[in-house]
Amino acid sequence: MKVPPVKGTRDFYPPQMAVRNFIVDGWKKASLRNGFEEYDGPIFEYLKMFQIKSGDEIVEQLFSFQDRGGRDLALRPEITPTLARMVNQQINSLPKPIKWFSVPRLFRAERPQKGRLREFFQWNVDIIGVGQSVADAEIIFTTVDYLREVGLAPNDIKVRISSRKLLAAVLKGYGIPDEKLESLYAILDKRAKLPPDRFEQMLAEHVPDRKTLNKILTFMSVDSLPDLEALIKADSDEFVAYQELKMVLWTLEAMGVGDYCVYDPSIVRGLAYYTGIVFEAHEAGGELRAICGGGRYDNLLRDFGGPPISATGMGMGDCVLEILLKEKGLLGESVSQKELDYFVTFAEHYGGSTVHRIVAELRSRGFSAAFSYKPKAGLSKQFKEASAQNAKKCVIVGDEFKDNKLTVKDMATGDQELVDMDEFLSRLGSG
Amino acid sequence: MKVPPVKGTRDFYPPQMAVRNFIVDGWKKASLRNGFEEYDGPIFEYLKMFQIKSGDEIVEQLFSFQDRGGRDLALRPEITPTLARMVNQQINSLPKPIKWFSVPRLFRAERPQKGRLREFFQWNVDIIGVGQSVADAEIIFTTVDYLREVGLAPNDIKVRISSRKLLAAVLKGYGIPDEKLESLYAILDKRAKLPPDRFEQMLAEHVPDRKTLNKILTFMSVDSLPDLEALIKADSDEFVAYQELKMVLWTLEAMGVGDYCVYDPSIVRGLAYYTGIVFEAHEAGGELRAICGGGRYDNLLRDFGGPPISATGMGMGDCVLEILLKEKGLLGESVSQKELDYFVTFAEHYGGSTVHRIVAELRSRGFSAAFSYKPKAGLSKQFKEASAQNAKKCVIVGDEFKDNKLTVKDMATGDQELVDMDEFLSRLGSG
Repeated sequence: MKVPPVKGTRDFYPPQMAVRNFIVDGWKKASLRNGFEEYDGPIFEYLKMFQIKSGDEIVEQLFSFQDRGGRDLALRPEITPTLARMVNQQINSLPKPIKWFSVPRLFRAERPQKGRLREFFQWNVDIIGVGQSVADAEIIFTTVDYLREVGLAPNDIKVRISSRKLLAAVLKGYGIPDEKLESLYAILDKRAKLPPDRFEQMLAEHVPDRKTLNKILTFMSVDSLPDLEALIKADSDEFVAYQELKMVLWTLEAMGVGDYCVYDPSIVRGLAYYTGIVFEAHEAGGELRAICGGGRYDNLLRDFGGPPISATGMGMGDCVLEILLKEKGLLGESVSQKELDYFVTFAEHYGGSTVHRIVAELRSRGFSAAFSYKPKAGLSKQFKEASAQNAKKCVIVGDEFKDNKLTVKDMATGDQELVDMDEFLSRLGSG
Repeated sequence: MKVPPVKGTRDFYPPQMAVRNFIVDGWKKASLRNGFEEYDGPIFEYLKMFQIKSGDEIVEQLFSFQDRGGRDLALRPEITPTLARMVNQQINSLPKPIKWFSVPRLFRAERPQKGRLREFFQWNVDIIGVGQSVADAEIIFTTVDYLREVGLAPNDIKVRISSRKLLAAVLKGYGIPDEKLESLYAILDKRAKLPPDRFEQMLAEHVPDRKTLNKILTFMSVDSLPDLEALIKADSDEFVAYQELKMVLWTLEAMGVGDYCVYDPSIVRGLAYYTGIVFEAHEAGGELRAICGGGRYDNLLRDFGGPPISATGMGMGDCVLEILLKEKGLLGESVSQKELDYFVTFAEHYGGSTVHRIVAELRSRGFSAAFSYKPKAGLSKQFKEASAQNAKKCVIVGDEFKDNKLTVKDMATGDQELVDMDEFLSRLGSG
């Protein structure tokens, strides 16, 4: 009986698994060198937990099910609710600031499309307990630190940074009432994706007053800090938010990644829960959706039953990133190729325990080693197997073994060396 | 609103995550040095796929759900069906032998108990396309290679090896008909777990003939190869199976792990699908369930709609293993402790861009580095933060910075050194 895989999921054969490992290992290394510690939660949680942050609409985007006790569970579509739950559970004993990262496997019950699958991986970094904008800068630096290391230059990608707090203060200054802010965010978030006419038309439906509309359009078109500063009222909420934004950009400049970062008022982020700095990384001039996004969310832990405590973070999925890395030629063949340190071969009559012993010795020293499982394979067939597995060296157990000697062949250069077996093993060191 | 985690799942806070990484990384390293390549499949598959190998009874042990198209899906309780599906899909293009490993996250909808959770990790190694017993030996060697490296000695654990093929041949030789074999396996598998009386009674219910019963009991009580050989009929299926078993043990001896391995007729393995060598690793004299188990399953790929092709493999869960490692004191504090290469501190008036620049430079060279997010923290508070994060060295930006000099303090010895900043950065190398 033949059963196909489920649409929107991926089979990771060794070459695809190697690409996944290349991405995930890079995320982990960048997190660790930036001082983050790894955590993870369960793949499923109570369904209602995901409604706290995202409302009831989230339910139909979830894979949900019941356990044998009839409890409603769901596969996690994101890890932030789990993060909030876990931090709240140990809020008093966890040393602050909390600098955590995770690479959760996530799920959404949507129709799969390019760069958007039903099952994917997402890098998350979060700093909890730091209200100052240095934490936002740290999150963005960590993001760029990874993208830079993987080979993406400032002309490949840009991190577009804005402030939800600044936007709120500015809109309120223009007379927009609190209760209208959220629906306005959803429209402003579409600015970069819509033709200008259509965007203005949508905005006008929510902001009938032409003067106010023009003010908003002007604010949204200013994308340099000096020009922005000229618009900002001194001694106001606007000014505080502007100073934070400036500080983030200054810190990123001091950390040497200023050329990756720009102020961009069209970054709003759809989600209601952001409260301060928000950002997205995009391919410079590219058409792919955002590579990653994040920002400050100072109310979330409280919404999950914890104390009011500030937080800021970032999420980056593997699907869009992988497409970009492929397009830019940054996933070389070497990423997905199997490698072997040693392949141990035998000439006729020399198979058996010597091969086993040498292979086992090599492995116990940390070298990767293999041998042919065909007891009657000739030497040339064994060399073919070695090449197919990209073995760097072949050890040959042959005639010279009568004198306790082995031949070691470098598979790249073809050079051969005759060595005493005990000497060979003793000078190996560790792999 | 406060929502608890689901029972039978685990929250991996950084210390628990470090233990999980210690286990998983060890599995991966052992697999790679033994020449296995990593693969993975989706977390969920069509429900019916899991019924192929395990029958309809499996359904109530699964977390199952429907997607929006009404298709029946289930969270994977094991990865072997996925492995069979993936191999069959590319059977003609995959180079043989296939030596693959995976560390899937698995799920079962059971009531949680000690060492048995509803969500866990399992190391799987499999060799597909090798009928010879050398492949069984390789699987067992790889298993022991991991257990040995993690610090378990031959007096801590034993790999108990047997042969389903031998057992079948022997039972048929005693006149047991084919159709009774499977129910007999299920009873024989319980021998080590039941009091001898109870075991004999259960067996007698299936084998009413006293003489046959005694023969089976004798066979099951012989646990040395020479004694076993005396029972075996020459030129029979029994003899072929016995030779294979002997060859596996001989190969493991040649590979230097003979002292971990014993023949044990009470290893039967409940599952119907095993066809040859079977084995389990157990704590020597311990009461924990098996640490791992595996064996040859030559019919499975065919059952999944593929060609008849031989296969052998092993699975090891993380829950029982972790309990054992803890009991044996093999999970030291160092496993779960955060480490930091550098913590960059500043004396009054010396915060800001220099700290940021040095931290960023350290990270870009691969060192892990952090600094205090409190802009007004005094030096002693910063040192406390550094200690809390187990920083190996502190860099101090202070008065000497006027002359472009930094102090570097070794946190273990307390030694301090005054160095030129540019020289410090240039001689760092990479972390």
